[in-house]
Formats: sequence, structure tokens, C-alpha cells
Amino acid sequence: MTGVRVAGVGLTPFGAHEGRTGRDLFAEAALAALADAGVDGDDVEHLNYGNFMGALAERQGHQAPVMTEAAGLRCAGTRYEEACASAGVAVREAVRAIRSGENDVMLAGGMERMTNLSTAEVTESLAVAADELFEVRAGVTFPGAYALMARAYFDEYGGSREDLAHVAAKNHANAVNNEYAQYQREITVEQALDSPEVASPLHLFDACPITDGASALVLVSEEFAADHDLDAPVAITGTGQGGDRAALQDRADMARTPAATDAAEEAYADAGITSDEVAVAEVHDCFTIAEVMALESLGFFEPGEGVGAARRGDTTRDGDLPVNLSGGLKAKGHPVGATGGSQIAEMTRLLRGDHPNSDAVADATVGLTHNAGGTVASAVVHVLEVAE
Amino acid sequence: MTGVRVAGVGLTPFGAHEGRTGRDLFAEAALAALADAGVDGDDVEHLNYGNFMGALAERQGHQAPVMTEAAGLRCAGTRYEEACASAGVAVREAVRAIRSGENDVMLAGGMERMTNLSTAEVTESLAVAADELFEVRAGVTFPGAYALMARAYFDEYGGSREDLAHVAAKNHANAVNNEYAQYQREITVEQALDSPEVASPLHLFDACPITDGASALVLVSEEFAADHDLDAPVAITGTGQGGDRAALQDRADMARTPAATDAAEEAYADAGITSDEVAVAEVHDCFTIAEVMALESLGFFEPGEGVGAARRGDTTRDGDLPVNLSGGLKAKGHPVGATGGSQIAEMTRLLRGDHPNSDAVADATVGLTHNAGGTVASAVVHVLEVAE
Repeated sequence: MTGVRVAGVGLTPFGAHEGRTGRDLFAEAALAALADAGVDGDDVEHLNYGNFMGALAERQGHQAPVMTEAAGLRCAGTRYEEACASAGVAVREAVRAIRSGENDVMLAGGMERMTNLSTAEVTESLAVAADELFEVRAGVTFPGAYALMARAYFDEYGGSREDLAHVAAKNHANAVNNEYAQYQREITVEQALDSPEVASPLHLFDACPITDGASALVLVSEEFAADHDLDAPVAITGTGQGGDRAALQDRADMARTPAATDAAEEAYADAGITSDEVAVAEVHDCFTIAEVMALESLGFFEPGEGVGAARRGDTTRDGDLPVNLSGGLKAKGHPVGATGGSQIAEMTRLLRGDHPNSDAVADATVGLTHNAGGTVASAVVHVLEVAE
Repeated sequence: MTGVRVAGVGLTPFGAHEGRTGRDLFAEAALAALADAGVDGDDVEHLNYGNFMGALAERQGHQAPVMTEAAGLRCAGTRYEEACASAGVAVREAVRAIRSGENDVMLAGGMERMTNLSTAEVTESLAVAADELFEVRAGVTFPGAYALMARAYFDEYGGSREDLAHVAAKNHANAVNNEYAQYQREITVEQALDSPEVASPLHLFDACPITDGASALVLVSEEFAADHDLDAPVAITGTGQGGDRAALQDRADMARTPAATDAAEEAYADAGITSDEVAVAEVHDCFTIAEVMALESLGFFEPGEGVGAARRGDTTRDGDLPVNLSGGLKAKGHPVGATGGSQIAEMTRLLRGDHPNSDAVADATVGLTHNAGGTVASAVVHVLEVAE
């Protein structure tokens, strides 16, 4: 089985791209990734592309051929949709295709346009990722769903709104230097606590923003990288995927996200590592409580210990395990179909040493990315390692 | 590389399923496939699921976890969206996952609900598969797009509305015995010619109907089939995928569908066969002209010869190459996200000998399925063979 290298990464700035189309955004990310890799578009054999709500946001489904054209590729493409984990799944299947020997050069990533919709429209469109019959008809949208999860967590393990506010403040601090982040500014714990309530116990600054953006990765086999003398020091050595029931009421415990545990265990076994070896992580913090649950599901903290991690400094940039040095979904932004690819792009930059926050993890050789869909009904985990 | 067997197939009747949900339909197909295979749902390692317009038709995206639950599975799933080729791509990636050694037992298929929408809504929803910026805004919907392709074909090669009417009459005749078909009744060439004009030169009976339905396949490795003593005589021996520009105006020749040629050439090479060895085919006849173009792109007829195939009797049930013995999309129906799986289910039944029309191809050992998205901006071809 051949190894897989990240030969190049490309991102648009995350934020509001008024007047630009989704294809325009993805083209920008794709061309940047090809340039970063030093790979010609004609060498790309297939596009694996993630998008969640294009049929609603731009009335554009069937985006694979649209995006191959936008990126100037001659190959075919495949669209993956797994809610906010769409690009994570697209990358995972690209890794598997290269490992199987079927492909040597893949472009993988995703795109989402969201800010062109009204607040009501975007809320209703995002709710399409929940269970329509049993959640949405009962009035549950995602802030409400994660609020229910936060309440269940607080009931079971303790924790406070202040603990969550430290997660928000940490991720904003990390975003200050990230030129791709939607919010390149700090917030204080007090500001987070004082922000308007959205769904108790979650307030506005517990939530990620609405974001336009695109991500792209050039993934190649080790052989291709060697044959073409590519500078591609970062390898994807582990991939895992987990699933859970779509609706919260069908879960045994709303304070746990077992799909992430399943994905992590598969990815660790695949890479031949344990969670202890991970030096830096990008996790899916669509809400602050989601980062807390991810830290526990991924094996970094025992149940009940994750909620205090940011407050204690364990996950800050100078902590034992820096988490979301990109700014995370919380401060970097969350164009949902692009996020899984963005996390791997950011981790690649962190491990290569060309990320503005690389100095915080100068000796790191193992990183993890965690991308989740819905209320973690879907999860994808990747392990990245410096290979040379 | 392990071989892949179709261990079981499941279909809902195609038609209008008033008052039923998409999950209900997919559960019916999935449970039928598991029963047909004699495989327990707990043995399924992953669901590969195709759906096109669920976010519009049922406000339900993120359908992979919804459908794993509906089918009673414990595993994770992945949704594929490639317009009307969604299930074809889902099956293709399941085949590749089994071949790679990553999986032994996969459920693959798809579902679409369409008849719950008004005619205007369904037309607008289907148009999401075209190029929104350059086709839909110019007023092109799919009947119009295929009418443009038909005009280009007639201009370049000749052919007539009567030739196309023979395609419709043939496929209706094939559907009469198919218990899953939406229209189990014959039509005459004259009825097709006299039906109302939709977009010149296409009339109503040149078009497939609006359909609800689901399809599911249990795909297993040869080793799993042998170890579990499964009765699974049909193998998927070839798979191929092709892509083209999304919009018609970006194509070199609107009378050709090169994505299908690319997919077929890859599938033939994969299976180690030539088009001459194919004894029976299910092709994507969303419009009668689409069957004509498919016959040529797949290598069965020279350019300009496909249009007369049904009229000459070459592709009728007693012809040299029976095409769409299921009734095709034209008469069996076209629940778009389910169609690619349905074609393989029908071909499996034809080759196993338990299809109502199996007597027409009693000696056939090699079959082909061709699933297309949009105006064949995407195409997936599979080769099925009787392996024992």
C-alpha cells in the first residue's frame, strides 16, 4: 500500500465574499493548491469535492463537473455530501483511492456559499443536516441541538459557561495571525460571557459564524511525489470515519459523540499511533461545547475533563496540546462543505512550518484533524505526520 | 485484487408513493436486498448511498445517517451526489472499496422522492443538475437541453421523430412484465408520435416520467461470498467513470456524449472485454435521444447508426443486443438518485435468470449498465458477468 502525501494546499480567505460565485471561490482554492504543489492541473486524475447546501444556496447541484471546469481540470469528479463533514469524507475517499493504487494524483476539497442567504434562509438550510421528521419539525435547529448537548454534558459532568467562554477566547486568539480567518481579532472571556444568549446555555460567542469559502488539497502517492521531486513532507497516515443516529433522541447519551471515537480509533489504528502521540489538533468546534466533546471522544481527555481544558491552558497555543491554532470554526469560520479540507490544509501548514502559528508547535511531527456532520452523526478523523 | 459479487438486490416498485417518506422507501429496498442476499444487516460495513434532490424535495440533507438507521444498520454511511448518476457513483466507489481490501460487505444504492412536488417544483429542482449560471438562467431545463442535443444529432447524422418513437415503444413493451415498473403497459409508435410536444423535436412520450423509488445492492468480496456460502453468481467485473463540461455550450459536439465513452472504455479495460462481448444492456434513457447517444458512446453502434437501432429491431427483446429490458427510465421510471442502483439490480436479475424478461437473454453472460448525470456531464458504466 502506497503512502499518501499532501503535495499542496489552497484556501480562499474565509468570510463574506459578496458577489462571488461558488465556482469562483473553489477555482481560487484549487489553483492555489496546484501552484503550492507544483503540479499541473492536467496531471490530476480525479476531483473529490465536498459541498453541503449548494442546491439551496445557489440552486446548483451536480457540482462535480462545474468545479472540474472551474479548476481547469480535464478529469471527472465526484461530489460528497455529509453535512459539515462533506470535505472530510471527500479527502478520506481520495486517500483510499491513492492507497488502493487506482490513482496517483487527486484534488480534494470543498466549497460553501452561505452569506448570500438571509439569516432565516441560512438557518433553515443548515437545519437540512438534522433529522427533518423528528428534530426540525419539533423546532430544533443547530444552536438548539448543541445547547441540548451542552446541558446534558453539564448535568453529567459539570462545567460552566465560563469554561466554554475560554474555548471561544482561545480560538479567537489563535486566529489573529491567520490571514485566512474570518475574525482576526481577540475576544475576552468576559465578552463571550456577555454576548447575547442564543439557546441556553449557549450564547452568540459560543457559535461559529456564517461563512463563504473554499479549500483544496493536492494529494499524491509517495511514488508520484518522489518521481516528480515534489516538496511534500507531510503524509496522511491515518483515516477513519464514524456514524451515529441522525437525531439526538436516538442516542444513548447526548453528552458523548461516539461517532468521533469510532473515527479516531480507526484513524489511530490505521496510522499505528495512540492519541498520546498527537502533538497538535484541529477539531470541529462549530460550537464551543463541540470542541469539548471532541477532545474527549478523540481520547485526549477523560470524560468530564475536556470542558476545563482551555481554561486550564492545556489546549492553548503554549499548552501541552494546542487545539485549533487556525482559529477553528469558531474564529476562522465555517463554510460547511469546505471545512474538512481547510482543517487539513491548516494542519499541513502547521507541520510544514509555514503557518503563522507554526512556532507554537515547532517540534510537532504528528497532527490530527476532526471534522463532524450534524450533531456528530458523522465524523471523519485524519492523522497527519511529517514524513521526512 | 479481490472480485466483487452482487449478493442481493432490492427495489421498491417505481411510481408515485403518496404519503411515504424517503427513508421508508429506502428501508424497503435495503431490507429486500439483505433478504435476497441472506446477509445480516450487522455484517454490513458501510452504506454508499445516492440521492440527488433530497434537500429540495424533503428538506433532508445529510441522508447517510438517516438511511443507515432506516435500514437497521449499525455502520456509517456516505452520500454521493452526481445528479441522475448519484447511485451509479455510489456503487462504483463500493466496488473500489471492496477491491482495495478495505471492505468485504457494502450496501449501495439510492433513493429519490419526486412526486410529492408540484410539476413546477420538480422541474426547477431537476434543473439544479444543469449549469445554473449559463443554462438555467437562459431558460434551459432538461427537456429543452435534450431537445437541443436531438436537433444537433439529427442535423449531423439524420434520423427522425419516428426513430425515437420506436425507442419509446420498445421500452414500454419491455416494462409490461416488470413488477417494479411505473408503466406496465405498451404504447404504439403512433401514440408516441401523437403525444403532445414538449420541446421540439421531443414529445411527451420521448421523456421518462417523474418517479419515487429506491434501490439497494448487497456487494461482497468473493472471499466473503465463498466463506458464507452465498448464492451470488453475478460479479461486477468492470467499472468506469467519465466527466464532461456541465453546460452544453462548452461541448465540442452536442450530438456526442464523450463522458459515456470515457466511462465505457475504462470499464471495458477493467473487465478485460470489448463492447462486442456485451449481450444485454441497461442504458440511461431519460429521453429517447439519450438512449440513441448512449448506444453510440458505449461502442455498440457507429455514429449515426444508433438512432435506427430500435426501429430495425437490433435492440428489441429479440434483437442482437436487447437494451433496457427493465423498461428503462422511460417506462420503468426514473427516481433519479436510485436509478444507477436499479439498473444494476435489474441486470443482476436478468443474468441470474430470475427477471421476468430473463428468457430474452437466456444465454447471456455479460451485461452492461450506463448511468448518466445531467446532459451526460457525468457518466458511470459497469460490466456485470456471470461468474459461476
